[in-house]
Amino acid sequence: MSPPALIAVDWGTSSMRATLVAQDGALLAHRAGGPGILAVPAQGFGPALEAVVADWRSRHGALAIVLSGMIGSRQGWAEVPYLPCPAGQAELARAIFRHDAGSLGQVYIVPGLSIDANGRAPDVMRGEETQILGALSATKSGDGTFVLPGTHSKWATVKDGRIVTFATYMTGEVFAALRDHTILSRLMPADHAAINEPAFKQGVAAGAAEGSPGALLQRIFSTRTLGLFDKLSAASLSSYLSGLLIGAEMAAACSGKNRIGHFHIIASAPTLTECYKLAASTLKLEARVAPDDCAARGALGLARAAGLIESLKS
Amino acid sequence: MSPPALIAVDWGTSSMRATLVAQDGALLAHRAGGPGILAVPAQGFGPALEAVVADWRSRHGALAIVLSGMIGSRQGWAEVPYLPCPAGQAELARAIFRHDAGSLGQVYIVPGLSIDANGRAPDVMRGEETQILGALSATKSGDGTFVLPGTHSKWATVKDGRIVTFATYMTGEVFAALRDHTILSRLMPADHAAINEPAFKQGVAAGAAEGSPGALLQRIFSTRTLGLFDKLSAASLSSYLSGLLIGAEMAAACSGKNRIGHFHIIASAPTLTECYKLAASTLKLEARVAPDDCAARGALGLARAAGLIESLKS
Repeated sequence: MSPPALIAVDWGTSSMRATLVAQDGALLAHRAGGPGILAVPAQGFGPALEAVVADWRSRHGALAIVLSGMIGSRQGWAEVPYLPCPAGQAELARAIFRHDAGSLGQVYIVPGLSIDANGRAPDVMRGEETQILGALSATKSGDGTFVLPGTHSKWATVKDGRIVTFATYMTGEVFAALRDHTILSRLMPADHAAINEPAFKQGVAAGAAEGSPGALLQRIFSTRTLGLFDKLSAASLSSYLSGLLIGAEMAAACSGKNRIGHFHIIASAPTLTECYKLAASTLKLEARVAPDDCAARGALGLARAAGLIESLKS
Repeated sequence: MSPPALIAVDWGTSSMRATLVAQDGALLAHRAGGPGILAVPAQGFGPALEAVVADWRSRHGALAIVLSGMIGSRQGWAEVPYLPCPAGQAELARAIFRHDAGSLGQVYIVPGLSIDANGRAPDVMRGEETQILGALSATKSGDGTFVLPGTHSKWATVKDGRIVTFATYMTGEVFAALRDHTILSRLMPADHAAINEPAFKQGVAAGAAEGSPGALLQRIFSTRTLGLFDKLSAASLSSYLSGLLIGAEMAAACSGKNRIGHFHIIASAPTLTECYKLAASTLKLEARVAPDDCAARGALGLARAAGLIESLKS
């Protein structure tokens, strides 16, 4: 078995996940459950990291530590400037940020990416770039479309190994705000049980139907009227609304000038992955599921490209 | 001066407004501030109405009382079935619902309208049909497009005196849910001060720009990134978001197959009317403001068509 070479830490707003990675790319061990950056007081990032990785370090030597995610934001350990798109492994490795982590020595923070082109609003990601590179490496291709579903879903287009463009859809958070804080919540049972497949698919089709952006404001209201007219049961309304928003997101990301035949889902939660697969099949799109631990795979590639693993071996 | 002929009551979920109307259509007196239907216990509707109109009745005799709005819903005094579109004054007058109001005698409840056509989700209104008829009577025309902006904005198309189609946009409620219950709220100052005109207009243009329904989920997120990139001040973000949603609604209602050159605003609040006028001018549309008290004007027309005033005179 190849010896450990790297500790990859995906450190986001509300969670932290550390992975011990071998020189040959094998993922040797995982530790989830560390605190998200919002739960860590200023000056607390070093101790929080040490609590999770100290014994790996004492057992395997001074392994390189690569951090990705919101840990590189203004609210994190050190603010690392966004790198503008297009950018791939080479650009991100060159811009990797060396941070003095006290007793842990140096740690390396991956920059996020930004888009600030004329004619559209700016957009940003932190952490997803590393996951996308990890998912890309598993495809054995330099091209692809990747979605990271969730509170703020991100769709990214990769060409020749570089992330050329991406867009964030506030789908998950809009869903939660509508479900919990509008008249729709009065119609929906309080327990958010398993997804109702037919209602979800009906929502996907309705959300993906042609129309202008404002049509979504009308379709959201139709969740209420379909309930009032007994065309959907109260228990299925939340599935319908979820499908409506995901269908609208997927159609916007995969059709028109963005037309594609398949895309890769970078999973964060199994339920969400199932929803996106179901939405894709409803819209006759092919969804492939990226392997787990894309963040660690992406961090390994960046560490290699940045010479962090080589230098440890010498 | 023409003698009083009618008491028109616009009785909605959260408010009640009664108007004393003369035989010639003059609006003699108003009383706002009565309880909305949700604040009235079962069996309480008669006493609540009597408290507001009793002295008009004792002074002017047994004037006909015409009620419109959610008072005719399942949560109201008596559930009056929706009338399907197309429907105008004649159809609504024929379907007006005679309800035994105890010591007040008979009252008349205007039915709401529904659309349940193939190929689209059903939609409903209660109360707006009466306001639209009132606004229509002031235009001296049988045709027009009318918007009732608000929590659930309604756009209606009138042809030859009949409401032929309408659509509800959940604009106001989506705005409030996003402003108060998503990550966007952290960026916005807590006091929702006066509208920032340039930011509102920028939002209108962005919301009305071409795109698919899912594009709205991306544009909503851009409120955050425009703030992060200092392209909009924190104080202006809520105006931008408001413009974004109203612009999307207005473009959906007024362009494409719905293309129109002007429309009528039926006002519920002066601020909202100003916002819709500003959005219209941004989108090069002409917005005309309907007179106040469209509900009372509409109720008068319905009372005449239903013979309620004639019969009182005889």
